[in-house]
Amino acid sequence: MTFDPEVCVNEQRFWSTIERSSEKGAIAATTDHGAGLRRLALTDADKEMRDLFVSWCKEDGLKVTIDPMGSIFARRPGKNNELPPVLIGSHLDTQETGGRYDGVVGVLGALEVIRTLNDLGHTTRRPVEIVNWTNEEGGRFPPPMVASGCFAGVYDIDWAHDIASDDGTRLGDELQRIGYLGSESMDRRLVHAYLELHIEQGPVLDREQIDIGVVTHGFSVHGFRIAFHGETGHAGTQPMGLRRNALVAASRLATIIDDIGQHYSDAGAMATVARINAFPNKSGIVASFAELVGDVRHSDAVIASEMANQVLVAAEAAAARANCEVEMRERWDWGGDIFDRDMVDLIRSTAELVGASHRDIASQAGHDAYFMARICPTAMIFTPCRDGVTHHPDEYATLDRTAPGVNVLLHATRSLADQ
Amino acid sequence: MTFDPEVCVNEQRFWSTIERSSEKGAIAATTDHGAGLRRLALTDADKEMRDLFVSWCKEDGLKVTIDPMGSIFARRPGKNNELPPVLIGSHLDTQETGGRYDGVVGVLGALEVIRTLNDLGHTTRRPVEIVNWTNEEGGRFPPPMVASGCFAGVYDIDWAHDIASDDGTRLGDELQRIGYLGSESMDRRLVHAYLELHIEQGPVLDREQIDIGVVTHGFSVHGFRIAFHGETGHAGTQPMGLRRNALVAASRLATIIDDIGQHYSDAGAMATVARINAFPNKSGIVASFAELVGDVRHSDAVIASEMANQVLVAAEAAAARANCEVEMRERWDWGGDIFDRDMVDLIRSTAELVGASHRDIASQAGHDAYFMARICPTAMIFTPCRDGVTHHPDEYATLDRTAPGVNVLLHATRSLADQ
Repeated sequence: MTFDPEVCVNEQRFWSTIERSSEKGAIAATTDHGAGLRRLALTDADKEMRDLFVSWCKEDGLKVTIDPMGSIFARRPGKNNELPPVLIGSHLDTQETGGRYDGVVGVLGALEVIRTLNDLGHTTRRPVEIVNWTNEEGGRFPPPMVASGCFAGVYDIDWAHDIASDDGTRLGDELQRIGYLGSESMDRRLVHAYLELHIEQGPVLDREQIDIGVVTHGFSVHGFRIAFHGETGHAGTQPMGLRRNALVAASRLATIIDDIGQHYSDAGAMATVARINAFPNKSGIVASFAELVGDVRHSDAVIASEMANQVLVAAEAAAARANCEVEMRERWDWGGDIFDRDMVDLIRSTAELVGASHRDIASQAGHDAYFMARICPTAMIFTPCRDGVTHHPDEYATLDRTAPGVNVLLHATRSLADQ
Repeated sequence: MTFDPEVCVNEQRFWSTIERSSEKGAIAATTDHGAGLRRLALTDADKEMRDLFVSWCKEDGLKVTIDPMGSIFARRPGKNNELPPVLIGSHLDTQETGGRYDGVVGVLGALEVIRTLNDLGHTTRRPVEIVNWTNEEGGRFPPPMVASGCFAGVYDIDWAHDIASDDGTRLGDELQRIGYLGSESMDRRLVHAYLELHIEQGPVLDREQIDIGVVTHGFSVHGFRIAFHGETGHAGTQPMGLRRNALVAASRLATIIDDIGQHYSDAGAMATVARINAFPNKSGIVASFAELVGDVRHSDAVIASEMANQVLVAAEAAAARANCEVEMRERWDWGGDIFDRDMVDLIRSTAELVGASHRDIASQAGHDAYFMARICPTAMIFTPCRDGVTHHPDEYATLDRTAPGVNVLLHATRSLADQ
């Protein structure tokens, strides 16, 4: 089957959807380049964006289904609808201080791919489905990527429904509240291939003025949620030797995690303390409880494991030093050499086909594609973002630098769907 | 004027008020000795306790007034009501995980003193007033002791009304809500002397089986609320060298504060990190803001200053190391050699008079008496609490070990009020 390599998506139509998305949950930027987004998963802003996205999908004749994690699937039939579909997408939720492009470009780029196929009247052999994964960021309901994790069988749905936000709201209840607790079974779904277009979230493509990052692998990530248990006491009278200040234990661990990151930073490693919550966390009283969320990342899986082990040792030491107990409440890991070689080659050759400059690149951030890679051939396409700034309202991308990625997504999707 | 040294308070009546108080905001203890209290300032539980206390005062014929900080004054007239009164009291609010005696013994002990004087029909030369200071703990509205601080002219009332709790509620609004935003002017009030009965909140009297701690001075305390300003970023992609993680800065400072406390602990020093709040404080994102509340304490004012200076140096270093800015948002200090020598002598001789065992002691905790000492002759009477456990639901005191302190308060108050 032939398909003209000159075929392009409708760039202005694509960008107009980005602009509409930028209105849902808008917050001010700190510079002159537009605004950021606060569109935490399953908030009213997220619901508004979902509703808009679903209305677009329906206008384009797609069949929309929702799974029990609230992920949205929009299906364009193929010639043989018994065949597993090609799945393309990303996420529409953002961090508390998020940008307009992280995740959004992948979902709305996928919509533009479908619209272009519709314009051409090209019916692929297999169905093509867009997916918007729920709660990729994990900002409101940690950990991240729980919906794709459930889809891939890594996480249990009941467990995921029970994840609570800081104010005690359950993820499952919020799905119900905003009307996105679907019933589409995850069990029966076979996927022919998964493609995810995403901004790089690093400075390489922007600095080197390259259109396409061909993602060869993901940084190995080890994340953890660690609790320390101590005892309350009076800040003014309890002798130091009797204290069991859980906040001190968490702070000591946080310090060492940062030290680990600094130690390995020349090799491109990262180690982050993202969150500490303590109780009572009040003036004048020693804290009986503290919880820390953080992670370590490295392009080399062996070194990433080494860093993770150092964190575990440090957690024990910090607890012992503060006379507290330590509890590993949750661990997650992803990344590594996970992408199908043929799929990666397809992205590279498709970039050549459409005349886009490209380079191989490793993904430092986690993506839903990481979990999808466990159940089907998967690849990612990166596009540039200015200075690599992300998870920040100043995150910025342009149509000129993003359109080549959408065209690569179009041709790679078409090629896979006609297999 | 003579007054029989054998006169005693009504112990059972006193203890029954403690028991009634123990119902207001009760929480479970972790051992078999009763329960603790969660009676944070200006909550519904605090209002209920205030209402009960006011009803008792009115039943006993006292004139109740409320000042603009919500502190409650209950006045028993003397023979010459032009003379400044003797003020006796403490506080009825508790920490989030508080006990039943901290502060409560002082207010209800003062009530029992008045009731005993009523029983005897003894009219003192000067008026005697009970005071319940608002928000001594500062647990909900830090810093502590703001109402006595306002009374003493150390703090500004408008500033204090603007103090916000974690959920953004203003102290002034909560005073209004529970009906304790009073109009009794603080400006015109002269006080002849101030006496505060309080549990020791340390183990000395309990260990040595001594009835009365004659408080000679207070530990020097330097408290601070320090903010760090950084910038958000992606936990997985932002190079370590570009990070400005405010939570790392706060954690580094917290670690060093604890180190300072350990370093000086042989000399009885304390250094506490009580609270860290960060933003966004979410999984996957570098924190742009963190605030730390803590303090250092030592019986020697010079060493306490030395410790405080080390904290300031450490705050600058922690900020520099994490590439953040540091902001000193608030400082407070109190304690030292603040109590009137004649008043301290009076407590000692009164203990002798009533046949209570006594020893000199330094207060490690802060008390409203510290601020009162700035405007009038002031002294404190300590009573034992088991193992020095406090700011903890297991805080425990007995009537046997507390009653001698109430009798000392009775005779010292009578003596001052007849001057």
